Amino acid sequence: MIGKGMSLTGAGLLFTSKCVFCHHLKTGCTMSILIKNTLLDGAVVDVLIQGEHITEIGPDLQARADTVIDATDKAIVPSLINAHTHAAMTLLRGYADDMELHTWLSDHIWPMEHRLTQDDVYWGTKLACLEMIKTGTTFFCDMYWHMPGIIRAVEDMGLRAMLSSAFIDFGDAKKAAQFKKRTQEFFDRQNTSSHRIQFALGPHAIYTVSKESLVWLANFAREKNLLVHIHLAETKREKEDCIAAHGLTPVRFLKELGFLGPNILAAHAIWLDAEEMDILGQHDVKVVHLPVSNMKLCSGPFPYRRLRDRGVCIGLGTDGCSSNNNLDMFEEMKFAALARKSLTGDPTAMPAPEAWVCATANGAKIFSLNAGRVEQGMLADCLLLDLNHPQLVPNHNLISNMVYAANGDCVDTTICAGKILMQNRVVPDEQKIIREVKARVQALLQR
Amino acid sequence: MIGKGMSLTGAGLLFTSKCVFCHHLKTGCTMSILIKNTLLDGAVVDVLIQGEHITEIGPDLQARADTVIDATDKAIVPSLINAHTHAAMTLLRGYADDMELHTWLSDHIWPMEHRLTQDDVYWGTKLACLEMIKTGTTFFCDMYWHMPGIIRAVEDMGLRAMLSSAFIDFGDAKKAAQFKKRTQEFFDRQNTSSHRIQFALGPHAIYTVSKESLVWLANFAREKNLLVHIHLAETKREKEDCIAAHGLTPVRFLKELGFLGPNILAAHAIWLDAEEMDILGQHDVKVVHLPVSNMKLCSGPFPYRRLRDRGVCIGLGTDGCSSNNNLDMFEEMKFAALARKSLTGDPTAMPAPEAWVCATANGAKIFSLNAGRVEQGMLADCLLLDLNHPQLVPNHNLISNMVYAANGDCVDTTICAGKILMQNRVVPDEQKIIREVKARVQALLQR
Repeated sequence: MIGKGMSLTGAGLLFTSKCVFCHHLKTGCTMSILIKNTLLDGAVVDVLIQGEHITEIGPDLQARADTVIDATDKAIVPSLINAHTHAAMTLLRGYADDMELHTWLSDHIWPMEHRLTQDDVYWGTKLACLEMIKTGTTFFCDMYWHMPGIIRAVEDMGLRAMLSSAFIDFGDAKKAAQFKKRTQEFFDRQNTSSHRIQFALGPHAIYTVSKESLVWLANFAREKNLLVHIHLAETKREKEDCIAAHGLTPVRFLKELGFLGPNILAAHAIWLDAEEMDILGQHDVKVVHLPVSNMKLCSGPFPYRRLRDRGVCIGLGTDGCSSNNNLDMFEEMKFAALARKSLTGDPTAMPAPEAWVCATANGAKIFSLNAGRVEQGMLADCLLLDLNHPQLVPNHNLISNMVYAANGDCVDTTICAGKILMQNRVVPDEQKIIREVKARVQALLQR
Repeated sequence: MIGKGMSLTGAGLLFTSKCVFCHHLKTGCTMSILIKNTLLDGAVVDVLIQGEHITEIGPDLQARADTVIDATDKAIVPSLINAHTHAAMTLLRGYADDMELHTWLSDHIWPMEHRLTQDDVYWGTKLACLEMIKTGTTFFCDMYWHMPGIIRAVEDMGLRAMLSSAFIDFGDAKKAAQFKKRTQEFFDRQNTSSHRIQFALGPHAIYTVSKESLVWLANFAREKNLLVHIHLAETKREKEDCIAAHGLTPVRFLKELGFLGPNILAAHAIWLDAEEMDILGQHDVKVVHLPVSNMKLCSGPFPYRRLRDRGVCIGLGTDGCSSNNNLDMFEEMKFAALARKSLTGDPTAMPAPEAWVCATANGAKIFSLNAGRVEQGMLADCLLLDLNHPQLVPNHNLISNMVYAANGDCVDTTICAGKILMQNRVVPDEQKIIREVKARVQALLQR
């Protein structure tokens, strides 16, 4: 069904491009949405969305709504949470693969990144948002440069995000001072960006940020009540270099600095001994697992069960598009579960529901979102899956299907903050974004 | 552009349902297709298909054709070859997961399979064909039961296939005699099925087929010039049981029986020592790698490089939908390459072009198909990829994009044997197949 404020033209459903309720949004929006006849946890129900929240769930709701969606043969599920990525790296998708990590970074990725402008990052992030909307992700935790471009892209595309600006001083005091000044100014300034965006600190890693800066950032985060997003214990070399430089392994080093706490989000967390896992658990550090990136770059085996058993909250992420090379969290769940089984030799390891929780409820917990489940009172961040998609047929077990059979193509409708960002797989402006990114990449290569 | 014999109605392109040239086909068909402005190996060309073959490739071809496709912003690539599956197991997708292999098979999969009728298998295979068409596969090598149902499904859907009827006697002489009789009758009978279908022998495995039957099948295959499709050295238990029963490892056991030769297709081939790999190489045995299934069922590490270095031709397959749980060969290529890197700790292992060759040219070699590349004189088994699909943008490297970023959703058009089976992602009868399969599965569960 087509509700008010929408029109059917040609083959696709187009959304109104302006809205009085959310002036930041150029994508579709509505005040209330009534989703009829959708499958939720095995039962057919109606779901009412008012403003940004799910306000009622039940059979045959009689509520009025601005938009009514007939969701017969569709299942409603929470949208996915990508807990670690570098969104604008879509620009480097397929640019350099199948290489040694050091050659890959030094000779290919870093030189190319050095040439990126703020406008490039804006368009790269828009492409990433487009891909995420099409594959069912509505929240991502980013770490990159050119923050104003990233903010603009997220506002335009209607997603939620936690944005952390990469802090890299390479031990250079001048660089450190610049980064600190920039950080201070950013958080002192009146924040006028969408409430869908949270900001975090982004010290890149212990080998790219000086000890002094790490301490400064930890204190700044405490003062401002910020999350700190860092790559931690990703490679064996990082661990060995840390021991050589500081006489301590990465986690012990950060503990000594007073850096660790419940506001720390550690991406990767692979090269840990048992005591370091205890330390992460005791400090309630949050961890992001990135199975595709870890396999592609040969980072090492992620100690999932040992961290989980210590109570560590583990989210799931895709990493950037040059080490994945896509942002499809459905695929990421499959890699997570299968990598776990393969590594442990135990086919019962990380059953589908656990991979699902990592990609939804755990992500919500990490980023303090009232999301990750479809329930009354939760944020209206959700998906309608097409139960007639061949890869979801038959539907013996929806969670198994989502983790092992689906990819992002199974998503019919993506809703974030009570706004429809995609319906019938149509995202407004998709082809415009594609055209612009192609042109920008051509220019970038010739720059 | 829309050529003769086609009509544009509503949002989708519909094909004529009858054709004088291929009366078996209910899907679209044409005598000649001119594909304009497509990207082939980095250059924009036109491709002419006449009958079942690619007959001309060049810039701005002036040929006349029954159907003209404007393939601007699309790349032409060979379609994918799924070298080992059990197609009708789509019916069991998500039915039982995350279990110990023995529990999974004995308590769930086998009892359910026992209840399948020929009509169930027909519809399950049709669903598999639908999924393969939508994800860019046009040839599959199958092993299952109820062969007439499988043949009918492949004929209806327009794919190519090698079909091997599973031979399982569990050492029971009476069962063996029945299977032998059935095999003899099948191959003696005048074969009236489509030329797109080849037939092979399908001894399930050394632990489900008696020594005597294996010898009989090897001789029968030689006499009739048939390929023999068998699960081999899939699990550690298979190896140990073989040693216990016959005093030899699986490959040595089959060598002793005179079973091995260039007509043997061994699925899995994991538990091999160096001498067994030599034996496979010396006998020119073909091997199928099934990375997703191997990871999901914890089968063990596939010795890819050691087999390849011995000259063994290695194809790629998805296995059935209860151990995968989809048939998307794009995903399979990614798993193959990433599993290889992760296992060896070498990020340069199985670079994208190697995964691509396994899924295309190697498959073509195994099944003696004049396919696996887009070249003049080759079979017109090919795909048009949508270069405006977000996961293929930007296009720094198409092969990297296909292996690491794409999934089957990036396929716009699927052509098999010179017939268009999907265009603009529309497969005729898709929703009819979905409806029927859903109804059949409901009935099956209540049977």
